[in-house]
Amino acid sequence: MNPTPAFAPRRSVEQVEEGLALAPKFGPDGLLPCITTDAGSGEVLMLGWMNADALQRTLATQQAHYWSRSRQVLWHKGGTSGLVHHLVELRIDDDQDAVWLRVRLQAGPQADPASCHVGYRSCFYRAVDPGTGARRFVEDGKTFDPRVVYGDAPNPTVL
Amino acid sequence: MNPTPAFAPRRSVEQVEEGLALAPKFGPDGLLPCITTDAGSGEVLMLGWMNADALQRTLATQQAHYWSRSRQVLWHKGGTSGLVHHLVELRIDDDQDAVWLRVRLQAGPQADPASCHVGYRSCFYRAVDPGTGARRFVEDGKTFDPRVVYGDAPNPTVL
Repeated sequence: MNPTPAFAPRRSVEQVEEGLALAPKFGPDGLLPCITTDAGSGEVLMLGWMNADALQRTLATQQAHYWSRSRQVLWHKGGTSGLVHHLVELRIDDDQDAVWLRVRLQAGPQADPASCHVGYRSCFYRAVDPGTGARRFVEDGKTFDPRVVYGDAPNPTVL
Repeated sequence: MNPTPAFAPRRSVEQVEEGLALAPKFGPDGLLPCITTDAGSGEVLMLGWMNADALQRTLATQQAHYWSRSRQVLWHKGGTSGLVHHLVELRIDDDQDAVWLRVRLQAGPQADPASCHVGYRSCFYRAVDPGTGARRFVEDGKTFDPRVVYGDAPNPTVL
């Protein structure tokens, strides 16, 4: 890993909005939301969460790390599946309480490049048409079989 | 407005992940994160928050509504600036605790099409290069002057 990047203190609105210092604001739970997109296609792949450690490790290793809220653990994306998110660029928003990762997907040993634990490329595989309210699946089918890739690992979806 | 869309109860992981019923999961604060992208360019414009009312109004009016955490009010995007987010498509993620809006921007009376209150097209106007750690502004400049568009309205950024 590269040296751990230090975050700057948040001193003023002007510094946070107009400066180049990385001064992220984590929520009361210590987390901020992270949008992850495919750097090639631009497709949104997932909405994840990061604590300070996950953000620092992402920058230091150039591989996305998230905080799993359902499992309450630091989560190196691809650790189980091989479907790593390689960091191409990190962006931060105006008030620095959200980040956007542009990533390159890789294939896993038992899966073509994809990101979603259900087997789709993107977690956002369902759409609502605002005019008609019609709902549809946007991908042609699953990219991989989650039973093969994850075995009997617990499903992270919480009702 | 169209009739208010009703949300489905969350009965099983299979229904939530594999079905077409809209069964969103709001957090303990009643909110879920919303990724908004430009439907033309694919660029991520902002990360907003929605309560059930905001999500229902977005679908019913086909214009994005958010919950402003800093102001603690329902926020019809563009109400002050004219920079409305016209809904092209709404997507929901695997466990239905995040949404993705694909929108079309419009110009305001005093601004070219843009989204960010600081004056940039996207709220994510700053990037970190993961290799070098170098930081830079990604847009050529501001699209509009926020002092002209917002006057003396309070800045929503919270330290």
